[in-house]
Amino acid sequence: MLRTIEIKQSVFESNDRVADALRAELRERGLFLLNLMSSPGSGKTTTLVKTIAALKDELRIGVMEADIDSDVDAHTVEKAGAKAIQLHTGGMCHLTADMTKQGLDALGTEDVDLAILENVGNLVCPAEFDTGASRNAMILSVPEGHDKPLKYPLMFEVCDVMLINKIDVLPYFDFDLEKVREYALMRNPKIEIIPISAKTGEGMDKWCDWLRREVKNWKEG
Amino acid sequence: MLRTIEIKQSVFESNDRVADALRAELRERGLFLLNLMSSPGSGKTTTLVKTIAALKDELRIGVMEADIDSDVDAHTVEKAGAKAIQLHTGGMCHLTADMTKQGLDALGTEDVDLAILENVGNLVCPAEFDTGASRNAMILSVPEGHDKPLKYPLMFEVCDVMLINKIDVLPYFDFDLEKVREYALMRNPKIEIIPISAKTGEGMDKWCDWLRREVKNWKEG
Repeated sequence: MLRTIEIKQSVFESNDRVADALRAELRERGLFLLNLMSSPGSGKTTTLVKTIAALKDELRIGVMEADIDSDVDAHTVEKAGAKAIQLHTGGMCHLTADMTKQGLDALGTEDVDLAILENVGNLVCPAEFDTGASRNAMILSVPEGHDKPLKYPLMFEVCDVMLINKIDVLPYFDFDLEKVREYALMRNPKIEIIPISAKTGEGMDKWCDWLRREVKNWKEG
Repeated sequence: MLRTIEIKQSVFESNDRVADALRAELRERGLFLLNLMSSPGSGKTTTLVKTIAALKDELRIGVMEADIDSDVDAHTVEKAGAKAIQLHTGGMCHLTADMTKQGLDALGTEDVDLAILENVGNLVCPAEFDTGASRNAMILSVPEGHDKPLKYPLMFEVCDVMLINKIDVLPYFDFDLEKVREYALMRNPKIEIIPISAKTGEGMDKWCDWLRREVKNWKEG
């Protein structure tokens, strides 16, 4: 049965301090935590489902689905073969490190190699709060437009990797892959950029390779 | 020359009180203010440009472009034939009524019949803050998926009208128009739903009729 927990924000501690402590603890235990962010509707859940299908025989995956209200995504992810828990943020537009910690505790991570936090669908606020994750990933989808790094700079600055999803519909949109690369690298010269289609599977190998490598490096310290 | 102002949030007043006072003032002056909200990339600016083109000979339009960082949209809207001002929110993920008031003052509204606030691209936080607008409008675009009213309930609850944009790409997405209607009406039985394509112009007549009627009714009190 799917469990849902209501998480609350701590008002007593500095988020950055809690985030650093959580990251140190994850490092110590060799547990890799990915913080996945994007706008609503960019395909976070579909990407996760396909990622779980590709990696579940080599990595034990646990997913925290942060949502303001529904349980739809956690059910979907659980069916795909990952351990899953729903986090209700009580209207909050982002997760803090303390909320993430509550989520990990409730999920239970003794039997998990790769924990994934699907953050609230929002290109603004989640970027402002360090969750304590090992790595930050974001999805920008083709229909959203290639100008987004110009308009939502912080999200691109804090992410280690950016998936460009829905490349199967590139022919139907005025989306310039070269421009989005240029704008994203302007915000963050170190960001890794991987075009994918979670729907058709294109590019998913490269994304799974990135994830595999990061999980391995994290474990090996 | 395009003007940009940095707006700051007042910490001294209740937002709801400021919003109600602003709305009363707008009513008194017969000035209609539309608060336009959506996720990043759903087509707010393109929809605005087409709306301005359709209505600029009958209504004097003034647009406030709220953006975290760039000036791209204000320039685009100005070229389309509306008076425009850029509001920089300084990282804030939403606008309050006080910020909206600062924007209207800076825009200058003596020669405006229809003022439009393009809120920050965010389906979460802007819904939580009454800007004092006459009416709230939102855009959901086809690529975002029909499940959004289930996952971001408040936005659908606070809006008077919902545009479903990018219907020209319906054939390429698993988007169910009937389901999105059902889910949106579940959240808000009074919400008006208008499918459009800002790109091809489909449905724009119906949207402009809605806007015309609302501006007229507001003026006539």
